[in-house]
Amino acid sequence: MKITIWNEFDHEKHDDAVKAIYPDGIHMCIARFLTEAGFEVRTATLDDPECGLTDEVLADTDVLYWWGHLRHDNVPDEIVNKVYRRVMDGMGLVVLHSGHASKIFCKLMGTAADNLKWRETNDKEILWSIAPGHPITRGLGDRIVIPHEETYGEHFIIPAPDELIYIGWFSGGEVFRSGCVFNRGRGKIFYFQPGHETVPTYHIPEVQKVLINAANYVYNNDTDKYPYGWAAPAAQQN
Amino acid sequence: MKITIWNEFDHEKHDDAVKAIYPDGIHMCIARFLTEAGFEVRTATLDDPECGLTDEVLADTDVLYWWGHLRHDNVPDEIVNKVYRRVMDGMGLVVLHSGHASKIFCKLMGTAADNLKWRETNDKEILWSIAPGHPITRGLGDRIVIPHEETYGEHFIIPAPDELIYIGWFSGGEVFRSGCVFNRGRGKIFYFQPGHETVPTYHIPEVQKVLINAANYVYNNDTDKYPYGWAAPAAQQN
Amino acid sequence: MKITIWNEFDHEKHDDAVKAIYPDGIHMCIARFLTEAGFEVRTATLDDPECGLTDEVLADTDVLYWWGHLRHDNVPDEIVNKVYRRVMDGMGLVVLHSGHASKIFCKLMGTAADNLKWRETNDKEILWSIAPGHPITRGLGDRIVIPHEETYGEHFIIPAPDELIYIGWFSGGEVFRSGCVFNRGRGKIFYFQPGHETVPTYHIPEVQKVLINAANYVYNNDTDKYPYGWAAPAAQQN
Amino acid sequence: MKITIWNEFDHEKHDDAVKAIYPDGIHMCIARFLTEAGFEVRTATLDDPECGLTDEVLADTDVLYWWGHLRHDNVPDEIVNKVYRRVMDGMGLVVLHSGHASKIFCKLMGTAADNLKWRETNDKEILWSIAPGHPITRGLGDRIVIPHEETYGEHFIIPAPDELIYIGWFSGGEVFRSGCVFNRGRGKIFYFQPGHETVPTYHIPEVQKVLINAANYVYNNDTDKYPYGWAAPAAQQN
Repeated sequence: MKITIWNEFDHEKHDDAVKAIYPDGIHMCIARFLTEAGFEVRTATLDDPECGLTDEVLADTDVLYWWGHLRHDNVPDEIVNKVYRRVMDGMGLVVLHSGHASKIFCKLMGTAADNLKWRETNDKEILWSIAPGHPITRGLGDRIVIPHEETYGEHFIIPAPDELIYIGWFSGGEVFRSGCVFNRGRGKIFYFQPGHETVPTYHIPEVQKVLINAANYVYNNDTDKYPYGWAAPAAQQN
Repeated sequence: MKITIWNEFDHEKHDDAVKAIYPDGIHMCIARFLTEAGFEVRTATLDDPECGLTDEVLADTDVLYWWGHLRHDNVPDEIVNKVYRRVMDGMGLVVLHSGHASKIFCKLMGTAADNLKWRETNDKEILWSIAPGHPITRGLGDRIVIPHEETYGEHFIIPAPDELIYIGWFSGGEVFRSGCVFNRGRGKIFYFQPGHETVPTYHIPEVQKVLINAANYVYNNDTDKYPYGWAAPAAQQN
Repeated sequence: MKITIWNEFDHEKHDDAVKAIYPDGIHMCIARFLTEAGFEVRTATLDDPECGLTDEVLADTDVLYWWGHLRHDNVPDEIVNKVYRRVMDGMGLVVLHSGHASKIFCKLMGTAADNLKWRETNDKEILWSIAPGHPITRGLGDRIVIPHEETYGEHFIIPAPDELIYIGWFSGGEVFRSGCVFNRGRGKIFYFQPGHETVPTYHIPEVQKVLINAANYVYNNDTDKYPYGWAAPAAQQN
Repeated sequence: MKITIWNEFDHEKHDDAVKAIYPDGIHMCIARFLTEAGFEVRTATLDDPECGLTDEVLADTDVLYWWGHLRHDNVPDEIVNKVYRRVMDGMGLVVLHSGHASKIFCKLMGTAADNLKWRETNDKEILWSIAPGHPITRGLGDRIVIPHEETYGEHFIIPAPDELIYIGWFSGGEVFRSGCVFNRGRGKIFYFQPGHETVPTYHIPEVQKVLINAANYVYNNDTDKYPYGWAAPAAQQN
């Protein structure tokens, strides 16, 4: 399976506190544990030519991970549309944390998914599994504790997910649909809420396991392409 | 309840066969039976200034009906975005027949919903209710027979509907998710497949009843607007 | 609309602390605010002949509320089956708090719905609305605060609800799908988690409003009964 | 993966026309192609001691296939309950054709799932995929044609499936949700409508492939068992 990790890669360059946690960028941290898990991984960032998402790269990507925060608007619509068409054709997509407000996620949701509650108070988060036995939760028990995270709270403006995997509890009083699967076209999308840049969430082994499990789950490439458009009566065919 | 019927209103002007069925346009036919049902109805068409969908009209619309076919691209993005924001805020939307390929429907689905199978062979369609007791199917029995319709066939590229109301059977061999409810933001959307311009579908009493029931069901206006954005810890509030 | 409130009515007779909160029983407290809301309300309890749920009472009930806790097994299977058949035929059912472990709820779920986490430590609960604009949440804002409740925690062994309305946050660290709608047959079921006998939850105005809204939402009686069994080819009929 | 095929095995003994199609019983036909696909397969039938479903057999079964028709009532409740508990714990279940009216399927649905329309007129059935890219539909294109089948028609009294995979079209005018996935507890259930005893459906390669794919999809064994019951506050744990 070929994975591309896309990262805005801005905080890590300009904020020393973030740099201390992710010296090579969030994308390299994720790339490392996905590589160790046996996947073939490349990375791409906002400031690469064409955001690193050329036709060749996208055509050669089975699952795309997406982390962005401050500069969603700098991703050209043309690239968003190319990613969208690849999802329709079966490319998996894992949207991370503040990627909920990215152009590609909002486009795939069809809603104002940038809307939710948030707060940076280093709340404890407990992710409760709603899906025992699901491929994404396997081997992870009934909960994952994240000592400190940015708080995201409901209501989150998304369509009802096709599968609700995790609900997040925050010590400040909020809850959030923190792990959600959406089927769109032939593509599968997994949204995973934890992953703020100022806390070492992607260094937590259980979080890494969720993201490894997710790659396998949203992988849906090379599946049958169906015919669309004008069609002769099916009842007369064999 | 205030309803606005939007119609592309093109076939009815230029095609005598269509004009014979809907001399004043499809929108006027629908407006008539919705008015008789007690709703306050206005109409709007593509060639009206601002497509007839000014800020004032949209703000004053509880439920919008949408019929379009050949000229989806002539609806400016700015107007599509205004309709979209009204749906997020609770305006109901009833999308009719080839409106599945409209900009607004595709935007709200987040998928390439213009893709399906189709054929104009005047197939018989039988709409089978999957939702006994649902407000949209009330008083309509377990099926609705449409003597002749354009055939739409699966696969139809939409997200799984929040509620599947009708499955259409076509004599040529196809099936279609012909009645679907989608919740998006605070808005409710009902997609209803029958309604080709060359057959008198909107003159059928059962079809009219579906569309009357639908208005009541997707009506969701004047509901609470929730707070979004930065939020103080809820646990410390009363 | 005719409502029957069924209560086990055991704690309130034998536990002074509970009696102090609900001197006439939980059923009478609920009956009072539903009556004030304009519904026609009767009550029934476990120790009544036939549990108070005779054929006549059930046939004359549009929506049944169910509160039980310690003596689920004392409800005869025959009565459970009668309630079940009425739900199949469109009677609404509102299952309250520990009613999750009742025979009727487990039967309708098809799962071991008596399984969840629980704790009696008077946690604060915050109910977060996941369904803005939904008939059950109308007029209630984005959250309901319950100062003290029994804690229920995920994982709760239920099928994915047809509509997830509220997620509960508990100060001890748990989350729960506290408001869920299930469609079964022609019936609608609303499960609502708060309502422990040792705290005055049913005296809270927002909780009362949820239960009033729920009555209207699950009301589905007098809807069409469909034909089942052997059927002539539909295509040959008009 | 260890599969057990359970068959009522009655028609094949007493009806020469059925015997001609399935000389060793439907279970042996299914066992053969599942064995060829690499699974470890055993069979069990109604007239075996304990219906062939002893504790040992069930504990050693990852996925259970179920075909029954005339003698659902002869399966003792005790065995139904044992199968049910195994599904709660993660055993996969594939319910075939008239197995929709079996005790175990109705129990897992929580509805009167024995209710649907039916007719034995050797209609053509076309199964249309609603789930491109889904593991159950892989390699099968957008449709499967079954020259002759018993007709099943909506309305079928089941809860909305967690995943709708196939809709069946019948030449007589009916439609049916012919391929449905339900999650119950840790178990996954796949209901597949084709498979009448008087037609050679299980000899069709595409049908065999659906049933092979299904085994892989509903396999969910050896997954984490979560804790239930009294629980200390999660927020105080690490």
